[in-house]
Amino acid sequence: MHHDQETLFIGIDGGGTKCRARIISADNTVLGAGLGGPSNPFHGQAQAIASISTAVELALADAGMPPSAVNQLIAGVGLAGVSLPSVYEAMKLWSYPFKKMHLTTDLKIACLGAHGGADGAVIIAGTGSCGYALVNGAETILGGHGFQCGDQGSGAWIGLEAIKAVLLASDGLGQSTLLTELIREYLGVSGGMIVDKLGAAKSSDFAQLSPLVFDAAKHDDEVALQIVQEAAHYIQVLAEKLWQAGAPRLSLMGGLSSLLMPWLNPDIGEAFLPPLQQPEFGAVYYARQQEMRVDV
Amino acid sequence: MHHDQETLFIGIDGGGTKCRARIISADNTVLGAGLGGPSNPFHGQAQAIASISTAVELALADAGMPPSAVNQLIAGVGLAGVSLPSVYEAMKLWSYPFKKMHLTTDLKIACLGAHGGADGAVIIAGTGSCGYALVNGAETILGGHGFQCGDQGSGAWIGLEAIKAVLLASDGLGQSTLLTELIREYLGVSGGMIVDKLGAAKSSDFAQLSPLVFDAAKHDDEVALQIVQEAAHYIQVLAEKLWQAGAPRLSLMGGLSSLLMPWLNPDIGEAFLPPLQQPEFGAVYYARQQEMRVDV
Repeated sequence: MHHDQETLFIGIDGGGTKCRARIISADNTVLGAGLGGPSNPFHGQAQAIASISTAVELALADAGMPPSAVNQLIAGVGLAGVSLPSVYEAMKLWSYPFKKMHLTTDLKIACLGAHGGADGAVIIAGTGSCGYALVNGAETILGGHGFQCGDQGSGAWIGLEAIKAVLLASDGLGQSTLLTELIREYLGVSGGMIVDKLGAAKSSDFAQLSPLVFDAAKHDDEVALQIVQEAAHYIQVLAEKLWQAGAPRLSLMGGLSSLLMPWLNPDIGEAFLPPLQQPEFGAVYYARQQEMRVDV
Repeated sequence: MHHDQETLFIGIDGGGTKCRARIISADNTVLGAGLGGPSNPFHGQAQAIASISTAVELALADAGMPPSAVNQLIAGVGLAGVSLPSVYEAMKLWSYPFKKMHLTTDLKIACLGAHGGADGAVIIAGTGSCGYALVNGAETILGGHGFQCGDQGSGAWIGLEAIKAVLLASDGLGQSTLLTELIREYLGVSGGMIVDKLGAAKSSDFAQLSPLVFDAAKHDDEVALQIVQEAAHYIQVLAEKLWQAGAPRLSLMGGLSSLLMPWLNPDIGEAFLPPLQQPEFGAVYYARQQEMRVDV
């Protein structure tokens, strides 16, 4: 155990918009933290590696450690996108600067962090959406298939559904909605010009529209209510499936969680428990588990 | 009118997958035809111009005319994508090789062709979907907002809805469906691997899945039935709106029309009349109308 007490870990949580890194000692003290940019290697591996490197450098500086100390760190790295085998394999080829790197998904580290390293489940609802349970070492992954084909109930999904509804309304093919005015104010365009404006929009651009949909739903706008209720229903189905998977503890996380919570069936909403620790801690739990496995 | 009788026109119909050109004399005889590749400038202007040029060169050769004769032709050009003002303006900057170019949308030329230059309306259901009416010089454009935000009832929309349903079913979050097996056979993958496989898929790739959905619907698969019925409903709403716009004649066109037809309400299905001429003829009608306007 002498070796373990000297070992420093770095926990890295990389997502579509930012990357967080924390250097954590063997006794669980945070020595330093750093923040980088987009780090989903599915959307660009070079960008992801650059963002991770930035977060790591800032964490080292924050800890008062020299940049060269990076090669003494054991890294636990959880990244969005690496649930796709091709992305995982490509990312494993990175000649990382750490002593060792243990790579896994953003979901696993979020779940390990949320439940202090113990069994449990998380639903992450932010730009994307996904359900994840880790019970007796067995993973259950539900949804999370990305903006185009999945991610129901996410910010990007809600924003896209709103745009679809506004376009249908503008053609007289769908119900009129408060969203028409709210989105005109936000984007500065209406009707077919919305498509021109959103030609190069990413999932995060659509996600930024989602608060407008919750606003309109609060004003009893039928179109917005339907979108929000469909989102809430999807989150509830995810929750039920995760309990069925045997998760003893379930957290709702991500930027959309506070907006969604009031729309959930109260039974389900109240059953969600707050996350205990951030995903970077989960990344370090993961790295420690892997190191123990290696040592055996 | 002597001038008109000497004038040769070229009608060009440019869409997402191919470009057709026909050289047509003043007395409406087709002198030559040519085919080029993808020519939607929204997806790439250089590619669109290259495809148009190929179609034009082949049409000239087919007519037994030298390449240099291109500068004697008055071109009517209808392109997908140019309903977006930014795309239209960019395309107008092309230093075209024709004597003159009259640029409009693929919709207008399809409609003019379908009704022999007279008033009418068309619904185009192929990779994308759109409704269009031209009545007393006034255009009505419904839908056609592209794969991401619109194009309900199109081949790409049907294919995407099928993928979404299969992914939901694979996670136990949605109803099980015949589509799971049909899409596994077609793509060679299932579950989350579908997303990996379709990572770079275009709307036309999703559209290629749409016949599978019609197959499954014929076998009374509930998920497929729901997708096909939603598509048919959208086409019917388009048709009703186009009749309300005063269109005396309505045609259903595009690669999906024969698959959709059996699913339409018989009243509506029977009211569709076959197109009289191809869009390239419509492009020439358009060019002639513009020339007459210029001469006045």
